[in-house]
Amino acid sequence: MDIEVICTGDEVLTGKIVNSNYSYIAQKLEDYGLPVRRGATVGDDREELLRAFREAGQRADHVIVNGGLGPTVDDLSQEIAAQAAGVGLELHPDWVERMEAFFRQRGRTMPGNNKKQAMLPVGAEVLDNPIGTACGFAVAIGKARFYFTPGVPRELFRMLEEQIVPRILKAEGAPGVIVLKRFHSFGLGESHVDQMLTGLEGMVPDGSLKLGFRAHYPQLETKLTVRAADESEARRKLAPVEAEVRKRMGNFILAEDDDTLEGVLLGLLRSTGRTLAVAENFTGGQLAARLAPLPGSDQVLLRGTVARTATGLLRAFGLDGGSEAEAHTPESAQALARAARLQAGATHGLSLLCNLSGEDPALSGLIVVGLDAEQGASARTTKLAGHRDWIRLGAVELGMDCLRRHLKGMPLHERNDFERRPG
Amino acid sequence: MDIEVICTGDEVLTGKIVNSNYSYIAQKLEDYGLPVRRGATVGDDREELLRAFREAGQRADHVIVNGGLGPTVDDLSQEIAAQAAGVGLELHPDWVERMEAFFRQRGRTMPGNNKKQAMLPVGAEVLDNPIGTACGFAVAIGKARFYFTPGVPRELFRMLEEQIVPRILKAEGAPGVIVLKRFHSFGLGESHVDQMLTGLEGMVPDGSLKLGFRAHYPQLETKLTVRAADESEARRKLAPVEAEVRKRMGNFILAEDDDTLEGVLLGLLRSTGRTLAVAENFTGGQLAARLAPLPGSDQVLLRGTVARTATGLLRAFGLDGGSEAEAHTPESAQALARAARLQAGATHGLSLLCNLSGEDPALSGLIVVGLDAEQGASARTTKLAGHRDWIRLGAVELGMDCLRRHLKGMPLHERNDFERRPG
Repeated sequence: MDIEVICTGDEVLTGKIVNSNYSYIAQKLEDYGLPVRRGATVGDDREELLRAFREAGQRADHVIVNGGLGPTVDDLSQEIAAQAAGVGLELHPDWVERMEAFFRQRGRTMPGNNKKQAMLPVGAEVLDNPIGTACGFAVAIGKARFYFTPGVPRELFRMLEEQIVPRILKAEGAPGVIVLKRFHSFGLGESHVDQMLTGLEGMVPDGSLKLGFRAHYPQLETKLTVRAADESEARRKLAPVEAEVRKRMGNFILAEDDDTLEGVLLGLLRSTGRTLAVAENFTGGQLAARLAPLPGSDQVLLRGTVARTATGLLRAFGLDGGSEAEAHTPESAQALARAARLQAGATHGLSLLCNLSGEDPALSGLIVVGLDAEQGASARTTKLAGHRDWIRLGAVELGMDCLRRHLKGMPLHERNDFERRPG
Repeated sequence: MDIEVICTGDEVLTGKIVNSNYSYIAQKLEDYGLPVRRGATVGDDREELLRAFREAGQRADHVIVNGGLGPTVDDLSQEIAAQAAGVGLELHPDWVERMEAFFRQRGRTMPGNNKKQAMLPVGAEVLDNPIGTACGFAVAIGKARFYFTPGVPRELFRMLEEQIVPRILKAEGAPGVIVLKRFHSFGLGESHVDQMLTGLEGMVPDGSLKLGFRAHYPQLETKLTVRAADESEARRKLAPVEAEVRKRMGNFILAEDDDTLEGVLLGLLRSTGRTLAVAENFTGGQLAARLAPLPGSDQVLLRGTVARTATGLLRAFGLDGGSEAEAHTPESAQALARAARLQAGATHGLSLLCNLSGEDPALSGLIVVGLDAEQGASARTTKLAGHRDWIRLGAVELGMDCLRRHLKGMPLHERNDFERRPG
């Protein structure tokens, strides 16, 4: 099976926007065991589009085209698709009605040029777009089945998942469904987790389970996909494997599926009426910035304080840490967490101190995380190496992870792969 | 002239990484009047690479290939380039010496497999890479000239600018050089600036001046490119046009060329020994986070304080703002800026208050910026509309822009295109 992806539009071709839709499509297909063989980028140009459609139609079995379904004159996908398929265009009155209702619900009248969006190649199959006016469609060009999708990301994502992936799986004779399970972890490298999960695929003897990874520092995503006749069989196959992953990766798992570390933290705090104050140096406030935008964070994150140096941060709370070199201690970090907590009237205080030494790109960062709650204080010290931004990302993740571990009653300290030496 | 770009590598093909190298290449070429006609993405696969090289060699005049120059077995660019060109590979001893010196400088010995990076197609022209071990090269395949570049972004950027663009311009018989001048502004939309700059291209009567834009909210980049026999002629042509742009866009220009708003702010503060404390709500500390990572910010940005609500922020400084609805006033913002300044012992205090109302995606954000210095206090009030993240970005930009205007003695308030109504 041969899958190609064609992204259209001058904005993508000229690099004005970075093509994240392509990555999304390729990743999503890969999650379902459908690897993309080739990608192409073409502008809003009749000749180039026609050539790209014809060439892909000669080579591939399935082609996903993104963009060019809008109402304006430079949206050419339907027209060139018809030309490449050697057919005319026909109006789909059902889709015109859908668009009119779409505009009516928003208190507007449909502009005349939107009708163009309901003109599809003769014989095309409609791919539903329940959240936009761009009608997707599937049509044969050459030996391939083409799937035309909207450029608006959320419309694309939904159409791909609900309309296109099932069609490709069915066309390829794949049995039933593919279910994806994801684990997000911090502190373990990809090869280490690969090793920890040795033999996992063998737990499902029919070979329908696949293990994959996606590293995006400082987190690692561990992905399980399983094929089965239906969803419930897939869940039955996955259950013991999921339990095994949780057992082997243990406290390193931050969150599962669509959950995030920041979401888990806010949930843990919010559900028990707890509140947080944070104090950080060097990170430029990234710890607070990760939590603050989430819905409901206003009831939880009471205050954040940022300073460039640890001594500057201590002074902001009327504390004295001595010289900058002396200020990066567990005692200082705990005192800061306590002062931040008390000043804001929060139940929990979290502090993050970082001291850089060495030279770019071989910098070394001493990280001290302090935690304070009514029940007492704790701290975690470690060293991270690498570029400045790398250390900053790792420090923020470590600080948030310490709070998660604290709230879940886990040990703050477990040796992690990014540390320079046992902390 | 027909230019294509081929990006190689499984990480890009599978969407594991978003292909920002492509955008960079396409934008850079466009800056020099060299539009890309087509892009392709291919994995680390002999057959697919060969097919992609041969097809592009039949169609294009110039092809830029990115990635696959590394020392490992899945780096195939040199080998497949030779195959597509119908030649063998030959060792470039000069490049081996360069690599050995590269490793020596870092206190390491070159591993044996790096030698592969000096094996180039017979007859290839070396494209220098002064900052890495991946040797670029140019070779003819079909009717096209191919330029092979490393996947590491900073190595690619430099090779593109110093080695490849000049070669393409020369091959195309373009006279001399193209010089690019950029202006970064905030508060004016693309079509508005386009209108403000009407007639600008006509200031250079030989037609060698081009005007272009790149909008990345909240900033707009205005680009001038000029062709000339040499750099000094280009500068001569540009000088009066640059002056005209500065005159027409006036105080809205934040920075020029590689400068940034945050860099300009830090420079203005640092060069006169001034220091800053910031206090912000709703933004999650993004204002401090923009300034903090820059070199030298430790001497300037003394402290940042973040709270979700304006009343929470006021309380952090022992101030009382009444109810949340009452707290978003110029008086509160100025009091906050003053308290932040005095508490941190800074010369300048900047506060940013934001209050959201309405419903997503039609939210309305009331933004109040407060400024305080020894010489007195000032404030700026406005309303921004849109999504939550959109308002947050606009608010942070507005806050930083107010400080810039204050430091440069410009009026804080000039009507801008993103405001909901005159503030």
